[in-house]
Amino acid sequence: MRDRPNVSLLSDIKSAFRGELGAITGQVTSGVFISFEGGEGSGKSTQTKLLKEWLEKNGETVLLTREPGGTPLGDQLRDILLDNKTGAISPRAEALMYAADRAHHVYSTIRPALQRGEVVISDRYFDSSIAYQGAGRVLLPAEVARISRWATESLTPTLTVIMDLSAEIGLGRLQSTDRLESEPLVFHERVRHEFLNLAYQDPERFLVIDASLEINQIHQAIIERVGLIKALRRNQKI
Amino acid sequence: MRDRPNVSLLSDIKSAFRGELGAITGQVTSGVFISFEGGEGSGKSTQTKLLKEWLEKNGETVLLTREPGGTPLGDQLRDILLDNKTGAISPRAEALMYAADRAHHVYSTIRPALQRGEVVISDRYFDSSIAYQGAGRVLLPAEVARISRWATESLTPTLTVIMDLSAEIGLGRLQSTDRLESEPLVFHERVRHEFLNLAYQDPERFLVIDASLEINQIHQAIIERVGLIKALRRNQKI
Repeated sequence: MRDRPNVSLLSDIKSAFRGELGAITGQVTSGVFISFEGGEGSGKSTQTKLLKEWLEKNGETVLLTREPGGTPLGDQLRDILLDNKTGAISPRAEALMYAADRAHHVYSTIRPALQRGEVVISDRYFDSSIAYQGAGRVLLPAEVARISRWATESLTPTLTVIMDLSAEIGLGRLQSTDRLESEPLVFHERVRHEFLNLAYQDPERFLVIDASLEINQIHQAIIERVGLIKALRRNQKI
Repeated sequence: MRDRPNVSLLSDIKSAFRGELGAITGQVTSGVFISFEGGEGSGKSTQTKLLKEWLEKNGETVLLTREPGGTPLGDQLRDILLDNKTGAISPRAEALMYAADRAHHVYSTIRPALQRGEVVISDRYFDSSIAYQGAGRVLLPAEVARISRWATESLTPTLTVIMDLSAEIGLGRLQSTDRLESEPLVFHERVRHEFLNLAYQDPERFLVIDASLEINQIHQAIIERVGLIKALRRNQKI
């Protein structure tokens, strides 16, 4: 199935001719790629695990991974990025380190699993960079997106679930805080707003979930949407 | 003095309007920025130290720094990038890690020193990324250059000294080899060719030195060129 159902092939080719970074290469995969995004404490890890179990019961091979991290190199970068001891990282350096982590993650983990026909679930992917390093910091979201496109050779999720929750409630759920979580409330509010903005622009890829609902209600909403993708995939295989 | 003597302000403004990454911001500095580039074993560190001593004797305040590294964050990235134990890093991840190191280096070290009016000498800067990650690996040099421009907000050296030496002689001078130095000879030959290509395209910024000459001969050639920059700088201050 195509990774970017809402982007016509023609517009991808046009992008390539405009010389945009990381245009059209490597979009052909047979697996399904699902990313989860949202603020801190929004319940992403609970829902990714429930979805993995449900998919496995339905006969899928599932790779559950996360960013930053997901590879040995990524874990080293994650330690630097999230450690409170690291101190201030310049905004562009931070964005580039996340992009480096993502490039390696896609190259060594995500793309090989998709090529084996697996379902890949990633706890965070490039929309997090657009929201955190773009809207949260002082960089232009479009520039951060462009670097992520180059890093990933434009590998885009089939489905992105946004776990939407007010920043105040989400942060209140946390037991301890890492370097990014320690940012002020207004930073996390800008991040939330950017996630909703991304979803508004691309409703075919995104599913926005009210993360204040019960765990099982959320799970049901997610598997309903994932079920549609599975059905579409079956039809395409016939 | 201007950082990019060969690039007109008009062409910078045009770049900004074309929406190129990291166009015109932050070019105003009062210091002088000199980078040294070249293959392994070409004598860069010897010559940077000699130049620093000469400049200090001539009354300049000099910051001698290097890439990767040059900041605490950069040293952590340098350890990952150059450690043989790290193993294979995907080409895009490697390019992005060097760019992250550079972004932080410019932001926290190089630009502040230039704004204080100092002379900054960097052992490697963005031409190394173009040569090593662009020509040496499989990436397009123009794409690697674009990412470095974004990382540095287009901060370009006033002078870049290329220490040119055949890869075979350079590698033969080394006592031990790190992850990049262990690449085959053909990789280092592509790197050398790309350095010469960059210099050919921009003779105002580059000085190509035959690094097989005697240490003092090389030093004389470098201070002759640096003396011209200093004279120009004095005239502009009048």
